[in-house]
Amino acid sequence: MSGPLAGVRVLDMSSVILGPYISQLLGDWDAEVIKIEPPTGDTTRNIATTKTPGMAALFMNMNRNKRGIVLDLTKPGSADVLHKLVKKSDVVIHNYRPKPAAKLGVAYETLAKVNPRIITCTTVGYGSEGQYRDRPAYDDLIQGISGMADLIGRYHNADPRYVPTAQADKTGSLMALSAILAALYKREQTGEGQAIEVPMFETLASYILVEHLTGPAYEPSLGPAGYVRQMAPTRRPFKTRDGFLCVMPYTDRHWKAFFEYAGHPELVTDPRFNSVMSRTDHIEALYTKLEELLSQKSTGDWLNALETLDIPFAPVNTVDDLLNDPHLQEVGFFAEYDHPTEGRLRRVTSPAKFSKNPPGFQFGAPHLGEHSLEILKELEFNDEAIQALLDAGATAHPK
Amino acid sequence: MSGPLAGVRVLDMSSVILGPYISQLLGDWDAEVIKIEPPTGDTTRNIATTKTPGMAALFMNMNRNKRGIVLDLTKPGSADVLHKLVKKSDVVIHNYRPKPAAKLGVAYETLAKVNPRIITCTTVGYGSEGQYRDRPAYDDLIQGISGMADLIGRYHNADPRYVPTAQADKTGSLMALSAILAALYKREQTGEGQAIEVPMFETLASYILVEHLTGPAYEPSLGPAGYVRQMAPTRRPFKTRDGFLCVMPYTDRHWKAFFEYAGHPELVTDPRFNSVMSRTDHIEALYTKLEELLSQKSTGDWLNALETLDIPFAPVNTVDDLLNDPHLQEVGFFAEYDHPTEGRLRRVTSPAKFSKNPPGFQFGAPHLGEHSLEILKELEFNDEAIQALLDAGATAHPK
Repeated sequence: MSGPLAGVRVLDMSSVILGPYISQLLGDWDAEVIKIEPPTGDTTRNIATTKTPGMAALFMNMNRNKRGIVLDLTKPGSADVLHKLVKKSDVVIHNYRPKPAAKLGVAYETLAKVNPRIITCTTVGYGSEGQYRDRPAYDDLIQGISGMADLIGRYHNADPRYVPTAQADKTGSLMALSAILAALYKREQTGEGQAIEVPMFETLASYILVEHLTGPAYEPSLGPAGYVRQMAPTRRPFKTRDGFLCVMPYTDRHWKAFFEYAGHPELVTDPRFNSVMSRTDHIEALYTKLEELLSQKSTGDWLNALETLDIPFAPVNTVDDLLNDPHLQEVGFFAEYDHPTEGRLRRVTSPAKFSKNPPGFQFGAPHLGEHSLEILKELEFNDEAIQALLDAGATAHPK
Repeated sequence: MSGPLAGVRVLDMSSVILGPYISQLLGDWDAEVIKIEPPTGDTTRNIATTKTPGMAALFMNMNRNKRGIVLDLTKPGSADVLHKLVKKSDVVIHNYRPKPAAKLGVAYETLAKVNPRIITCTTVGYGSEGQYRDRPAYDDLIQGISGMADLIGRYHNADPRYVPTAQADKTGSLMALSAILAALYKREQTGEGQAIEVPMFETLASYILVEHLTGPAYEPSLGPAGYVRQMAPTRRPFKTRDGFLCVMPYTDRHWKAFFEYAGHPELVTDPRFNSVMSRTDHIEALYTKLEELLSQKSTGDWLNALETLDIPFAPVNTVDDLLNDPHLQEVGFFAEYDHPTEGRLRRVTSPAKFSKNPPGFQFGAPHLGEHSLEILKELEFNDEAIQALLDAGATAHPK
């Protein structure tokens, strides 16, 4: 294993998207990840496209590069297994709130006694110091409370809606990943681990406010929050004769090239459009004209022309279009591999490139409890002890 | 400084959002950041809400905790300054594509000769190994080409639109932040730095495909891409008598509590709604009923009721609502500070909490070239040498 995190050992007790995406990224960079599941398994094992029960595409995508052990933390003997795992680990990820975490024996204070170098990362809906700490949190709800759903409604001049991707979960995953790596780096200096908490609400709100804070960045506030440019009705893909297109002519040169190619050289010298300032003053007329001209040719014609004219543009791709994109093929964005039971699978490689530590690929996602026995043996549990754990329901493995 | 990255030294030559947000987060965790600007300054200095020219709210938010030096890399003497800075740094961030980077002397190979421990992070629109490498990239365009704009259109049953936040930029920032920290951690083992490249297109596409890959996760594909649940028309905030509300009753208990509170106990035993399976079979009727019942009371009434009934919910907040949110106040989400020239300002604190390394706050954003002279003196340039740099236009400072 050659990735930047080769040798880092991670225990992940989380489920659904937020936590598993953190450890997917850690594993994609060659950390050794063990996924701990309750006997019922991660709920995503049976969500959406699935060939074999328990091995849904979504689950396999987020849980590649992980070995899997079943561990029921409420059953006798499980704490012993957990502690032996923690002794050999650098990072523990879970999504239990403080009270259940203490009850299940996974609180930082408990695990740090077993291994003072351990770094725990707890992902929660709402920070444990605030009054929403016990509210259940799902991606949609966090998009609502953080301001995202309202921003979309306003920008679309329509009712509030969600972003059609797990934005609260995945922004949380990326923030948590960075926090874990910062704590790992710090541990190289201090020799000590620590507890990290990453709340979804605070994370998505802080992400939105990077550019939307505006007026209230001042005290007293200079006006309402919201970044006007991102909310402008002219900020959208435009219609062509047969589809849509993203285009952003900006400089005098861009507009000159665009008007001339569109067969309207007289617009180059039109006093409404001949400088950045006058274009800003006549923005509505400008974009009305832009759309009128775009609608006269096909998307394909425009894509070729804009590339030649060196005017900033992009196609409006479907997700399926990505599969055939020539640039993505050239950079090795998609890769295929054989899963022992699920056949030929497709995955996405790391978008971040490391010159000296190009990440490899370890293996496909595990069946529920696939590595339970293997991992218990590594921890030096003998056959008798393993049988006792199986009998107690503390662990399980596929028949 | 007590944050996890105290002592880490960062040079940031980037502009606009993607790069500055990386170094904002590094600085928020107490890294020492020096922002290098050309004599014209970062373009965000004059975008949107602004009190003093050159000190826009958006700029100040993303560039807090950074000292600023003006350095024109095309001018005589600038390379010497850059190399002295690189010698004292751990990380260099820039957004030059390979050719301009080589021309300006900021390519990894050049900087690694000066400091073999340096980690460079280049943020680009499209990876340098693929055919789109020279295309200009902006957040909107990347949302278009990555599939985001089309997903939104389909989900809203409308034309393609953008997410009203710099999603391509900021997802890139978070991925780059993690990559930098992974390389810093790795350097503790190897003693060597390396070059990182983070492309916006590949990063946002990989982020979207976490759950939207579905069918094409298999080879041959089992069907089209797209995660059905996130695209469902029932996945949206619902209307109340006077506004909107996010609500996610799911279990039998949730629906029983909801129907009873809404004054329709007969629906609890309605065969269409009395189990998860039958609710899934009658999902349209269920959500029609849900909306009908929600519309009979105000948002305020529902918020109180749902909290009491322990049914997952969230308000649809505006961004301005966040300023008065009691939970955010309790967790210290917002903090105020005095900027030497811009008065009392508001910022957002780190959403990630570190038990042993709570980040502090360093200082407000710099005026253009505010620390040019201070930094040059630290690098042991004498008055004469500094004057030569000023005369050559290689550096500048406020009058």
